[in-house]
Amino acid sequence: MPESGSAASTGRESFGSRLGAAMAARGPLCVGIDPHPALLRSWGLDDDAAGLRRFSLTVLDAVGSLAAAVKPQVALYERHGSAGMAVLEEVLAAARGQVLSIADAKRGDIGSTMAAYADAWLRDGSALAADSVTLSPYLGFESLRPALDLAADYGRGVFVLALTSNPEGASVQHVGGIDSVARRITEAAATENGRYDGTLGSVGLVVGATVGSALADLQLDLRAVRGPILAPGLGAQGATPADLRRTFGAAYPQVLGTSSRDILAAGPGVQGIQGAARRTLDGLLEG
Amino acid sequence: MPESGSAASTGRESFGSRLGAAMAARGPLCVGIDPHPALLRSWGLDDDAAGLRRFSLTVLDAVGSLAAAVKPQVALYERHGSAGMAVLEEVLAAARGQVLSIADAKRGDIGSTMAAYADAWLRDGSALAADSVTLSPYLGFESLRPALDLAADYGRGVFVLALTSNPEGASVQHVGGIDSVARRITEAAATENGRYDGTLGSVGLVVGATVGSALADLQLDLRAVRGPILAPGLGAQGATPADLRRTFGAAYPQVLGTSSRDILAAGPGVQGIQGAARRTLDGLLEG
Repeated sequence: MPESGSAASTGRESFGSRLGAAMAARGPLCVGIDPHPALLRSWGLDDDAAGLRRFSLTVLDAVGSLAAAVKPQVALYERHGSAGMAVLEEVLAAARGQVLSIADAKRGDIGSTMAAYADAWLRDGSALAADSVTLSPYLGFESLRPALDLAADYGRGVFVLALTSNPEGASVQHVGGIDSVARRITEAAATENGRYDGTLGSVGLVVGATVGSALADLQLDLRAVRGPILAPGLGAQGATPADLRRTFGAAYPQVLGTSSRDILAAGPGVQGIQGAARRTLDGLLEG
Repeated sequence: MPESGSAASTGRESFGSRLGAAMAARGPLCVGIDPHPALLRSWGLDDDAAGLRRFSLTVLDAVGSLAAAVKPQVALYERHGSAGMAVLEEVLAAARGQVLSIADAKRGDIGSTMAAYADAWLRDGSALAADSVTLSPYLGFESLRPALDLAADYGRGVFVLALTSNPEGASVQHVGGIDSVARRITEAAATENGRYDGTLGSVGLVVGATVGSALADLQLDLRAVRGPILAPGLGAQGATPADLRRTFGAAYPQVLGTSSRDILAAGPGVQGIQGAARRTLDGLLEG
């Protein structure tokens, strides 16, 4: 039986509903919060927890009322150990009520260990709770079950890695011909979104903005997934909004275009960041 | 050109050499440090950072001079946010010089983000530095390059997920027939270990202890990998040492049998844990 828009345990609307509303109101832009060492340096900040904090809260200040979502890159906090993770907790807390968050963690495991990752990122009361988290399915889509179920319970969401544009990704994702690994992941996500009504389910996929013809070659039906598509790779990483529209075709309304470096490089001034984010957003809304 | 036993940047012996020596001296046992909520409860500890800390340091105290390696399960620390990660830093620091550590993190990403994960777990001076880390290759084996290279530089190692025994793992790992995903990962690890001389390279694989005939069915040549095989699943999770010997055959000398629950359930007394670890170790050494 499909779950209604509000989640079982909390009364919170489902993540898919909340993201769909944010994309309708603000446009389909997700801003990556990527405190890379080189960016910290170019902002005049130290590569330490204080630098991370200043960087992240500045980005949030600049785009928190403009973007549909922000995506902190967990690796760049983890690099600073528990001190970095404490900054991430503060960033996720600051985002709440202001803008949806996607913790880009690419976690994946099995059984009670997977349940522990779900607990960390998707449970009310967890210090690292985000509106959604990215997951990696090398252990099988179904191994992610504890996160899929906890997300549904709490009105949160997941984005599962499906098809990426890095050349070496093909050696796993394209394997299997017409029954490719990427297609199996895509079809499992479509099935899973059957539990959600409304326009967008809460089980999204990560599909690179620069995958080119691979979507067609592998016959992935993203429309049928009926979930949000997180598409990193806009701007400095190589794709224009027009590329995105061409690549995703009929699934474009599900696509959340994700840009990091182009927007972040316009800092450290809040107005510079806002200007770069608005230009990217305009490109995504055009046509 | 093969790298010699000692790593370029540090003069530290390669991880493969260090692990091989530990397995020869102590036997092929890795003890998982898995502070699951249910185990904490059964030890009379709270499910919080103080409980995690007490649990983890007790296990280390019990098996630090007995096991070849310990494997803290990162998800169970991450569940407690930055406070849990601070405990993990303390556990990894306490292990140094006493027993080799394998941070079971299953991280994976691309480019500068993968470099950030490598930095977190494999760089001298990082608060979370472990002797080795587990990695997940959904983005392609080659996407792990920054970790492979940093590990070589610092005399550290990696264990890449290859073939697991959870039933849903087949939907990714077995895909591709004779050119299966698992086989591609296995062959890439074999090639990568060409940079190391000595008996064991520093690029290991994770292969479930209960994969049964899948190794033969998929024609994976683990001997040719010439790296350590981390084989979770001993004891409570279903495999006996005899199963391990049967499953891995000629590659058994590379296998690091990993047991968690059976050993941990014998706590909280240090002697109980030691007794359970010694019984498991005896089983692995027999025959």
